[in-house]
Amino acid sequence: MTTAKRDTYTPETLLTVAVQVFNERGYDGTSMEHLSKAAGISKSSIYHHVVGKEELLRRAVSRALDGLFGILEEEGATRGRAIARVEYVTRRTVEVLMAELPYVTLLLRVRGNTRTERWAMERRREFDQRVADLLKAAAADGDLRSDMDIRLATRLLFGMVNSLVEWYRPLPGGGDDRDQVAEAVVRLAFDGLRTVRPPQ
Amino acid sequence: MTTAKRDTYTPETLLTVAVQVFNERGYDGTSMEHLSKAAGISKSSIYHHVVGKEELLRRAVSRALDGLFGILEEEGATRGRAIARVEYVTRRTVEVLMAELPYVTLLLRVRGNTRTERWAMERRREFDQRVADLLKAAAADGDLRSDMDIRLATRLLFGMVNSLVEWYRPLPGGGDDRDQVAEAVVRLAFDGLRTVRPPQ
Repeated sequence: MTTAKRDTYTPETLLTVAVQVFNERGYDGTSMEHLSKAAGISKSSIYHHVVGKEELLRRAVSRALDGLFGILEEEGATRGRAIARVEYVTRRTVEVLMAELPYVTLLLRVRGNTRTERWAMERRREFDQRVADLLKAAAADGDLRSDMDIRLATRLLFGMVNSLVEWYRPLPGGGDDRDQVAEAVVRLAFDGLRTVRPPQ
Repeated sequence: MTTAKRDTYTPETLLTVAVQVFNERGYDGTSMEHLSKAAGISKSSIYHHVVGKEELLRRAVSRALDGLFGILEEEGATRGRAIARVEYVTRRTVEVLMAELPYVTLLLRVRGNTRTERWAMERRREFDQRVADLLKAAAADGDLRSDMDIRLATRLLFGMVNSLVEWYRPLPGGGDDRDQVAEAVVRLAFDGLRTVRPPQ
């Protein structure tokens, strides 16, 4: 069985295992020994694929970041009124988060102890800043309430979106509730929970 | 200085130090040795106050839980229309979270490896459930949008509120932005970010 496993191991499957272990133990708390045990292959087999655990971290958070930054290139994010674009980006961010759940979870948990972690945090802040810029543009159009600080609004919006990594789990049996979740986030964030809105 | 410290140590100041260390290292990763070093007193002095680190954990999360459950006894949470009560509880939860930041942070991070941690998680779920019940009552009154699952709405609301432990820091110099933050959470959650609401 070990031989079969070793034969079929690819950088991709190794990455899947590594991300799972990083999320369970924390990146700092994960050794090559842990990765080797979890993957069921020797440490030297792992070194055949990567120079060390930091490369696995970089690949994993890159996958999350590529997904997130990809959103900003999509037509819904680049054309139309700012309020529509920021809604689109919010919805797609929730979708990418659910589709790449372990990778985004890892991205949100990195703490900045290594160069790769600091780079990941920097890129994540860049993404947040791009969304904050969209919110600012929507506010300038008069489409966002004017009684809320944009920086605070951005943090609360991301607080809500990012909380999904703590509680969202795919439905057992392969059912798909992703559209419902993404829609709920957008409705709550932009229209609020209340039925009747008090006068501004 | 050590003597002075030892003389003035109280269970309260020991708790302050312990919570800080728990939040930095994780409860699991904290030893009595770490606590002793951080507090600048011997382990036996700590044992003079508490039977072990689990008692410190229990005291710390109790402080957070007492703050949160206390809200539910306040007049704003017990009288009036459900929508007004749930808004009140949301605002007060944000206020307690900011006032007891290290204690609530610890509460939200416990993982369930010990009896005290499991108890804390159970109490936290109870609190969430009480708020979910209020949201249900508001929905039954027709005051909450009907196109969103209440369980999902509760999770998103707490996701946003609880995210404060990750990013909220008291203003340097003692300025107070707490009212502004609490108001922003309530406005975003119940009225949304958008100026003009589309027809239901």
